[in-house]
Amino acid sequence: MFTTPAMDAIFAPAAHIRQMLAFEAALARAEAAAGVIPAAAVEPITAACGRDDFDSAAIYAEAAVAGTPAIPLVQHLRARVSGDAADYVHWGATSQDAIDSAAMLQMRAGMNLLLADLLAIGARCAALAQEHRQTLQAGRTLLQHALPITFGLKAARWMALVTRQIQALRQVCDQSLALQFGGAAGTLAALGGAGMRVAELLAAELGLPLPDLPWHAERDRVAAIAAAVGIAAGSVAKIAYDIALLAQTEVAEAAEEAAPGKGGSSALPHKHNPVDAVQALAAARLATGAVPVVLSALAQEHERAAGGWQAEWAAIPDLFRYAAGAIAHTRQAIQGLQVDPLRMRANLDMSGGLVMAEALTLALAEQIGRSEARRIVQDACDQARTAGSSLRQAAHDDQRISAVMSSDAIDQALDLVAYLGSADALIDRALASFSDVVGSAA
Amino acid sequence: MFTTPAMDAIFAPAAHIRQMLAFEAALARAEAAAGVIPAAAVEPITAACGRDDFDSAAIYAEAAVAGTPAIPLVQHLRARVSGDAADYVHWGATSQDAIDSAAMLQMRAGMNLLLADLLAIGARCAALAQEHRQTLQAGRTLLQHALPITFGLKAARWMALVTRQIQALRQVCDQSLALQFGGAAGTLAALGGAGMRVAELLAAELGLPLPDLPWHAERDRVAAIAAAVGIAAGSVAKIAYDIALLAQTEVAEAAEEAAPGKGGSSALPHKHNPVDAVQALAAARLATGAVPVVLSALAQEHERAAGGWQAEWAAIPDLFRYAAGAIAHTRQAIQGLQVDPLRMRANLDMSGGLVMAEALTLALAEQIGRSEARRIVQDACDQARTAGSSLRQAAHDDQRISAVMSSDAIDQALDLVAYLGSADALIDRALASFSDVVGSAA
Amino acid sequence: MFTTPAMDAIFAPAAHIRQMLAFEAALARAEAAAGVIPAAAVEPITAACGRDDFDSAAIYAEAAVAGTPAIPLVQHLRARVSGDAADYVHWGATSQDAIDSAAMLQMRAGMNLLLADLLAIGARCAALAQEHRQTLQAGRTLLQHALPITFGLKAARWMALVTRQIQALRQVCDQSLALQFGGAAGTLAALGGAGMRVAELLAAELGLPLPDLPWHAERDRVAAIAAAVGIAAGSVAKIAYDIALLAQTEVAEAAEEAAPGKGGSSALPHKHNPVDAVQALAAARLATGAVPVVLSALAQEHERAAGGWQAEWAAIPDLFRYAAGAIAHTRQAIQGLQVDPLRMRANLDMSGGLVMAEALTLALAEQIGRSEARRIVQDACDQARTAGSSLRQAAHDDQRISAVMSSDAIDQALDLVAYLGSADALIDRALASFSDVVGSAA
Amino acid sequence: MFTTPAMDAIFAPAAHIRQMLAFEAALARAEAAAGVIPAAAVEPITAACGRDDFDSAAIYAEAAVAGTPAIPLVQHLRARVSGDAADYVHWGATSQDAIDSAAMLQMRAGMNLLLADLLAIGARCAALAQEHRQTLQAGRTLLQHALPITFGLKAARWMALVTRQIQALRQVCDQSLALQFGGAAGTLAALGGAGMRVAELLAAELGLPLPDLPWHAERDRVAAIAAAVGIAAGSVAKIAYDIALLAQTEVAEAAEEAAPGKGGSSALPHKHNPVDAVQALAAARLATGAVPVVLSALAQEHERAAGGWQAEWAAIPDLFRYAAGAIAHTRQAIQGLQVDPLRMRANLDMSGGLVMAEALTLALAEQIGRSEARRIVQDACDQARTAGSSLRQAAHDDQRISAVMSSDAIDQALDLVAYLGSADALIDRALASFSDVVGSAA
Repeated sequence: MFTTPAMDAIFAPAAHIRQMLAFEAALARAEAAAGVIPAAAVEPITAACGRDDFDSAAIYAEAAVAGTPAIPLVQHLRARVSGDAADYVHWGATSQDAIDSAAMLQMRAGMNLLLADLLAIGARCAALAQEHRQTLQAGRTLLQHALPITFGLKAARWMALVTRQIQALRQVCDQSLALQFGGAAGTLAALGGAGMRVAELLAAELGLPLPDLPWHAERDRVAAIAAAVGIAAGSVAKIAYDIALLAQTEVAEAAEEAAPGKGGSSALPHKHNPVDAVQALAAARLATGAVPVVLSALAQEHERAAGGWQAEWAAIPDLFRYAAGAIAHTRQAIQGLQVDPLRMRANLDMSGGLVMAEALTLALAEQIGRSEARRIVQDACDQARTAGSSLRQAAHDDQRISAVMSSDAIDQALDLVAYLGSADALIDRALASFSDVVGSAA
Repeated sequence: MFTTPAMDAIFAPAAHIRQMLAFEAALARAEAAAGVIPAAAVEPITAACGRDDFDSAAIYAEAAVAGTPAIPLVQHLRARVSGDAADYVHWGATSQDAIDSAAMLQMRAGMNLLLADLLAIGARCAALAQEHRQTLQAGRTLLQHALPITFGLKAARWMALVTRQIQALRQVCDQSLALQFGGAAGTLAALGGAGMRVAELLAAELGLPLPDLPWHAERDRVAAIAAAVGIAAGSVAKIAYDIALLAQTEVAEAAEEAAPGKGGSSALPHKHNPVDAVQALAAARLATGAVPVVLSALAQEHERAAGGWQAEWAAIPDLFRYAAGAIAHTRQAIQGLQVDPLRMRANLDMSGGLVMAEALTLALAEQIGRSEARRIVQDACDQARTAGSSLRQAAHDDQRISAVMSSDAIDQALDLVAYLGSADALIDRALASFSDVVGSAA
Repeated sequence: MFTTPAMDAIFAPAAHIRQMLAFEAALARAEAAAGVIPAAAVEPITAACGRDDFDSAAIYAEAAVAGTPAIPLVQHLRARVSGDAADYVHWGATSQDAIDSAAMLQMRAGMNLLLADLLAIGARCAALAQEHRQTLQAGRTLLQHALPITFGLKAARWMALVTRQIQALRQVCDQSLALQFGGAAGTLAALGGAGMRVAELLAAELGLPLPDLPWHAERDRVAAIAAAVGIAAGSVAKIAYDIALLAQTEVAEAAEEAAPGKGGSSALPHKHNPVDAVQALAAARLATGAVPVVLSALAQEHERAAGGWQAEWAAIPDLFRYAAGAIAHTRQAIQGLQVDPLRMRANLDMSGGLVMAEALTLALAEQIGRSEARRIVQDACDQARTAGSSLRQAAHDDQRISAVMSSDAIDQALDLVAYLGSADALIDRALASFSDVVGSAA
Repeated sequence: MFTTPAMDAIFAPAAHIRQMLAFEAALARAEAAAGVIPAAAVEPITAACGRDDFDSAAIYAEAAVAGTPAIPLVQHLRARVSGDAADYVHWGATSQDAIDSAAMLQMRAGMNLLLADLLAIGARCAALAQEHRQTLQAGRTLLQHALPITFGLKAARWMALVTRQIQALRQVCDQSLALQFGGAAGTLAALGGAGMRVAELLAAELGLPLPDLPWHAERDRVAAIAAAVGIAAGSVAKIAYDIALLAQTEVAEAAEEAAPGKGGSSALPHKHNPVDAVQALAAARLATGAVPVVLSALAQEHERAAGGWQAEWAAIPDLFRYAAGAIAHTRQAIQGLQVDPLRMRANLDMSGGLVMAEALTLALAEQIGRSEARRIVQDACDQARTAGSSLRQAAHDDQRISAVMSSDAIDQALDLVAYLGSADALIDRALASFSDVVGSAA
């Protein structure tokens, strides 16, 4: 429930094996091109790597004994390579080269899925920002009404948040995806003088950047990827949480799209639960929970770790799977979002105009200074609250106010629409940034 | 690689569904016994609950829409119950009642697996403690030689650690496993006045303790279970880590049992990696990493959470699976542990007796006071280190020492075996405690 | 802001030093009683330990060089002990003995503070549970109205949660507080045959339980304490969160007590923020965040750790400080809680009686079976929602209902007060349990 | 012990207050320049902001009541501003604008400290990489000898790791430091049409980038900073951990510089503990432990959070303080690092040349194919281990080898120096990258 089938497929054990086979095939090609292994070995090895009869359950069962899936995989692969070519399988590489490079390929594919869903969320937010540019809504701080905003501005802030996540994921792909290739202790010793040349060719084959150095026990790249994905998941959870809060029975400003079987209760026929938002929140908790597993494993032993690296084999798939769930469910929640502008306005009015206290204070301050204005408006707020009337009524009734402001001036100061400051300009800025990330994807 | 097949089976989606069906069947029996539903409804419901044709993939796919697996499950169940009895399926219960109670049944089963492996680790440690009661070894603090200990004492401390985990898991089972049953908002309203009676009967049916109150959004029980399991996993990791450290090429005091395909390298024929210890360490990182997901979700909304509870659905299975891996791999590592007493002794001697500096200081202090003794022995240590000789040699050569201690007295003060303090008594204390937990399991 | 002055004092560096001095004084007394050191050494040592002129800043600055605060402390202490007694300071102990035992004394004191605040929260909840036994409120699941509950029941569930935390903290004190005493490698070698006797006397002196074995690198006790404190902090955060949600402008069922300077805004005169609840939530996040630092450090090296143990020196004080903040702010929030029963009732009514859909379904099911009833009531709910009327109206209008239920029967089925199930009995059960923990404190 | 005085000063409460005052002064200047407040108000406000008589203890005590330190601070500030200018203090801003912008200024200063220490570590690693380019050492995987490397290569990999952290911290500064300025609900409503203009001027005044939008409840920037700092701390911990492992009594290839009072034991005069490495490891655990507090708080409510934001107030200072400790202690550990090339060589030889098994396999494979070669060399390794001789001896004795390889060829295949692959080239690549980051700092 907390992932997507597509992401699940990318991080399935069988997919990891397929990517390790892609590494082994690319390695053979690179080494033949560099003259390290015979050209004749390439075809048998790549052919065997392309076979679909690897038994991933068996390989992982053997991996639990061997301590790594690459060792049994290489054995299963060699058994499928005819003739002398079998000797050149995995030539000069170490298990970790195959495992890490395969993981990088998986992460790259996973990132593409996340980015597609983030772009869709951004696009929907952009539409909401435009559509609800004038839709008044209460701005809420510490869950209390603060000042009027527009729902368009809220959507624009969601969009800006997502825009930054798209930028961050793209950047971390550019900077942290990398080939792993160093041989048993990171010297490429088995390749003699041809090590760097093979590394370059291998990187090109796999489309992975060539790093300065192998990085078997220096996991900052993986940690940076994990952090970016975790932050993206946590960021969309902010949107999902806002939706769940807006969908509260007492607030009712937004609701997830109704659909057969969606969001009901096993006992309560009237329930309309924000189930996508809730699943997004759950998945985001799980995704951000996987990040510290990676970060706390950065201190790895010497040239290959005894535990910290191996924990990544499960933590990274868990992270991507849960992040996919968080982002996809948020996409679901927002794509069908039902917005109720009338209810937004009604909620804004429910506190009798108290949200305009700051506006009234500022207007009044022009006449009598801010401290005095603040005191008087505070009194008017108290009066409105006690009497159950409105700030407008209280303001008109307060002679300290009516002495310096006309009735019209008071009403003007309390006009919600006039007190939106730079909301429109901010929406435009956010739209422009999102437009940039959409454009740069093309 | 980081779990066990048995634990995997307990926390598979299909197993969760089976346990929810066990809940629904028990509920029908309890409600019939309390006169809430017709006695005739029991057989059709329990028969349907016993069927093995529930499609867990389909149910979980529907769950992603419904927001909970209980809703589609109840629908699939009703469709399998003939006649009017279908109306009495899930009577008065809410989704969370079924999901939480089923999770409790899974956790109980999972705990039994963990306990069995912990008992096996303890038993092996007990044997090692007895066998190596006299095996001298360097005690190491901050990875430096400190004083002599015995390997028996080290094994006894491992055993004591495991003993406490067995006690802790048993205790948390007694105290925190609990029926969940409250209906849609925790009042058991749909059962009229029969709610508590049904709850009692249902608890008895499932063999789960009846709590004071339903606890839908109060997750301290689950958190306590998660913490105990995480601590158990982290605790066995201490043993696994010690094994990996003892197995270092330079230390070589212990090694995991050699076996075909075990612990080799894809490139290095001479490697004998501590693969079970390493996998235990990795799994323990993953297990302890799941605990904060549960703990950080304790602040749940009102009568049912919007995200925090749902995150448990994945975090708890992850936790138990990884904890099982940590404990089982530690069991593997220790069960075949090859201990090398000669190497232990050789390592202890390699620092030229410097580990006996404290002993010599104490003996010398009896003659000349501690501060003076400390200074002189420090000099002797420096002398031994600089000269590459031994503390024994340096002590004999130092006239400030030989002036007050005879040659025999110096040798006696430097006798490793005579400087083991209460090691033996401590081993006995640990053995007695382990014996208690073994006995109370019977 | 996220702790209390009292807890801050307990975990200040100066307090840690005081507790290490208490350890050293007790050690001297115990060793003299066991005949290990001269009786004449006791008075000078205990006198020096009682001095208040230890410079904690200097000691901690030296500790950053020495690697442990115990080494400079012992030096400062020796310098204050006159005559030969100085030689017997810290006799046979290791730094970690002093540091861990002192930490245990701090944790014991910290626990008492937490328990006192938890008892106060429980007592206030008990009063609320009694006072609001009949106060109708919406039960909310996934932030949606579900069924009616009483605010008394909600308070009772808070109380039950707190009751369990009190029990858990008391239990972990009984089971996990322990003397640390093992000497440099855990054998008590420097005490010859008197080790266990000194350990017993020392434990008695400090009022700390004597464990089976020293536990320098087996940190399960500390982890258990950390987990219990983290769970307690997370548990009260559930209460604080409920308060913040109830205080939302649109819900307005409860509010924190108003006080001068409390909960206002720097810009908005009308704000009345739930600042204690918010600070409790922040502090609880910080407290639960300290737990994984301890849990992930369980795998410690050999006889003393290289990093994992030292991290506790900051993580445990952080944890207790933040937990104190979470619990104290929750106490503040609830002690002055303003409850608005009228608003609770108004909110419950705002969905036009839809919360009674289950009740109507059950009543109707008695006539026509549950599936049919569920379908019809679902229609009525849709009708009520669409028409903006009430479920009562829709039920009366639906001929499938009115055909089998009289008008009175419909109204009776929709009576909120009649649909509270076992709420009262559950409150009584919770009160009884809390009463037990109060009683056992006496 | 786990921070530095300089970082402590940057994140002290008094420093936060100073930075909030810097914000308020800059705000007055910006607003006067934009014509929003009278020019005459600037001097009195900036003068008051520059005073050093703000009582931070009092302000934080009031903050615990107000819920935020900005409210009492603004009151204390207004009280210090003479005349009408007091009315223009904090004009149009909200508490969070001041708090977040001040935190950004603190983080910027903190980053500079971290970067300086990272550069120093890198420089020392560069020197070690050059100096020990030819120093043979065992490459270790899973704590077992794998293949020969050079200590220069190990130092180069540490350097490359640190190089990337420098780049990452600089980049996150460029991208994630940002002004916070939005007023009470993020619309800048109180500034009418001048909001964006004031924002631009304010950003310029503070030297903080102007973001597209205010980001009160969108905390991805803070999370990105936190993650980068946590990863930097975790990364240097890898270096510290390697040092601690190299310093083990049995390995003894490196040691921290001896100094008076450094690394001794309270009981053991011969101890030379790697105390800086150990403190770095502890501090890194604490630092990475602060990251999930920030990441798990990303889902914040509406326009200002109820708990998640406030938790940052402590988590971010904790993170920077502990990260500073991790990095500074690692710097200490490596700056005085004593390297023992003879011991490195001796350790490499201790396994009787088994680390050259791969090299021999490759050489032999040229004659007889890889599978056969692997089998034979495995036999020779077993033989060498069993006989306690060397691989060289066993190779010469094995007729399957001597049949196809001359004695010289065997010796050549076993030459450690000839089997370093691309080590030199990799060192050069790492040096070039570090040189780039040093250069770009100029």
